[in-house]
Amino acid sequence: MDPVTSRQFNTDERRGLYRAIYERRDVRSRFAPIPLPDDVLARILDAAHHAPSVGLMQPWEFIVITDPDVRSQVKRQFEEANRRAADDYTDDRRRLYETLKLEAIVESAVNLCVTCDPAVTRGHGLGRLTMPETAVYSSVCAIQNAWLAARAEAVGMGWVSILDARALGQILHIPESIVIVGYLCVGYVTDFDPQPELAIRGWEERLPLRKTLHFDRYGDRDHHRASTLEQLGRATAGEEHR
Amino acid sequence: MDPVTSRQFNTDERRGLYRAIYERRDVRSRFAPIPLPDDVLARILDAAHHAPSVGLMQPWEFIVITDPDVRSQVKRQFEEANRRAADDYTDDRRRLYETLKLEAIVESAVNLCVTCDPAVTRGHGLGRLTMPETAVYSSVCAIQNAWLAARAEAVGMGWVSILDARALGQILHIPESIVIVGYLCVGYVTDFDPQPELAIRGWEERLPLRKTLHFDRYGDRDHHRASTLEQLGRATAGEEHR
Repeated sequence: MDPVTSRQFNTDERRGLYRAIYERRDVRSRFAPIPLPDDVLARILDAAHHAPSVGLMQPWEFIVITDPDVRSQVKRQFEEANRRAADDYTDDRRRLYETLKLEAIVESAVNLCVTCDPAVTRGHGLGRLTMPETAVYSSVCAIQNAWLAARAEAVGMGWVSILDARALGQILHIPESIVIVGYLCVGYVTDFDPQPELAIRGWEERLPLRKTLHFDRYGDRDHHRASTLEQLGRATAGEEHR
Repeated sequence: MDPVTSRQFNTDERRGLYRAIYERRDVRSRFAPIPLPDDVLARILDAAHHAPSVGLMQPWEFIVITDPDVRSQVKRQFEEANRRAADDYTDDRRRLYETLKLEAIVESAVNLCVTCDPAVTRGHGLGRLTMPETAVYSSVCAIQNAWLAARAEAVGMGWVSILDARALGQILHIPESIVIVGYLCVGYVTDFDPQPELAIRGWEERLPLRKTLHFDRYGDRDHHRASTLEQLGRATAGEEHR
């Protein structure tokens, strides 16, 4: 039996998907001071809305934030949380941390807060008895879809996790029953880095794929097969994105 | 200032990304009884490995499962969990539930278990003081990357959440400190449904995008703007994938 052919991707389409995956960046700087057109924002949101969700529950909601007052409140919360985070580091690591730009709350065109309502009855609970955490995971998949769509639109996106969820919820009037999953800065950028900024800046390195692989059971490593898969996988990413 | 143009996607590349998003399905049936070539598996794994991760911590690990004995043990666990899940439904809903195929553990070419080690020191804790849950979210983003890459390769993937994590961990020898994030069935399929199977089968419907949107603060709905964004977003997805 042949696999599906009627809906095959052509070479350019397949490259487009892989380009989005390999060229997506967590962007916090070089946002262009131009607005994000509604049609581009709509495509990013609709991509998010077509993420997988457990039982088709679609637990995600999106708060589209442009109000400068809301954003300056969020920015103040970030600064407070970031001061506490910086205190966890010492010496060279602390000096490096303090040079990292970890948000673009005010200068990006739009902020997006992505939430999850884990109590929503859509989906009739399917798949959530054993792994209820998959409700929140559905909203994470929505964020990843949005991130890839943004890259294909030449739009940068950065995920800000240095925020106190309770304080953020108060600023955004989010009920306590709703889970804040991600806070994102979104807008056109003047450039995308070829590698993650944290790799370029020497904060952390890309792990080789082979080190993430186990076979049949956790701990069964098979170094030969892992190296083979790593080499085969490398053929897809351009040299500069490995 | 102009947004980036040097790395623009051409029309086909952009369509490729959106096709992957709109045509991705949670596949549990019609797996073709043919193996998954190593180069295709490698591209799917490398796509997963290029997901975003908080602080570039890359907390994911992948167990590539082909062993029939391991799979039949997992299948038995699924059957047990699924019997308990079925007991949550009554009447027509229960009869519908019992006709749904919710896994393809034995007949898909490969199973993948995706984990997260939340204690990994890579990333030096960046971004995890306020939102430590982003470690697990990084592994979820890896799964979504894999899912989209699979679709571009004409490979089906289904996420099985009807499994007891503790029992699964014992079968796969996963240490208790490692979080099981997702268990996936992967392989060539003979066809992809135009819509999610749960929508086709009448289990649940796609929510209109406008109902997921808030503006500036949760609860601020702006129905006119939400409808405009919904209509603009619809222009991208083909009619059959809305």
